[in-house]
Amino acid sequence: MGDKLQIEVTSEAKSNTKLEVEERGHEAVVDEPSQFGGEDEGPNPLEYMFTGLAGCLNVTIHHVAMEKEVEVKKLEINVTGGIDLQKFMTGEGGRAGFQEINVEIEIETDADSEVETKLLEEAEERCPVSDNLQHETSITVNKK
Amino acid sequence: MGDKLQIEVTSEAKSNTKLEVEERGHEAVVDEPSQFGGEDEGPNPLEYMFTGLAGCLNVTIHHVAMEKEVEVKKLEINVTGGIDLQKFMTGEGGRAGFQEINVEIEIETDADSEVETKLLEEAEERCPVSDNLQHETSITVNKK
Repeated sequence: MGDKLQIEVTSEAKSNTKLEVEERGHEAVVDEPSQFGGEDEGPNPLEYMFTGLAGCLNVTIHHVAMEKEVEVKKLEINVTGGIDLQKFMTGEGGRAGFQEINVEIEIETDADSEVETKLLEEAEERCPVSDNLQHETSITVNKK
Repeated sequence: MGDKLQIEVTSEAKSNTKLEVEERGHEAVVDEPSQFGGEDEGPNPLEYMFTGLAGCLNVTIHHVAMEKEVEVKKLEINVTGGIDLQKFMTGEGGRAGFQEINVEIEIETDADSEVETKLLEEAEERCPVSDNLQHETSITVNKK
């Protein structure tokens, strides 16, 4: 099994919507558009989550393609979802997050369509972000 | 219930690790460090996911604090986790994602510690990203 890869991000709130984040030397800003009280200085948290999913699928699709000796010539990944903000806004209602996340993939390879479909299915199973979203993951929150 | 907020990111692979992403006019780059075959031009997918969680907790903590008439004077959010890459690498083994995600929060407010603890608990429940990670979320993948 080997050692686990340790992932860490640290961050500091600059406003009620703006968060400055440091990831292994990279810096990022999370913010909200004006309709949610922010100044739109960066993508919002949901867009970051979708970006992580798209990035993970890119890496995993290429990794599985390499195993199958399939050349990926082009890959575009779109992630969309509609979210009901009632729970976030009021504390009442259904679940706080997306009920469903939709991924649309345009892929060109040197393999046939059936192989491509199997490649995408296997990549989805082996993509860590996809796994963490599709299955229950424990989150522990501790106050310093 | 009202209309759902629509979230969308579009992206194009530039290499087997690098993904250029567009989110509502914002641009982001996902990449991997050299140990995973990338050029480290941006945070990796797991760091993006953690950034989304931190950003979401920031917004939600401030939102719930406003409801409770609590002033947040300082807020720092660290997200960490250890991930076993065996499933990603080989297709065998346990789950592909994190088994547990740890959030450490340093918060200063004008309320007492008990109120702060309840504030964090309620924010965690109402944070969409936290909800999508903690509970099963359907992901549909369609090939264009």
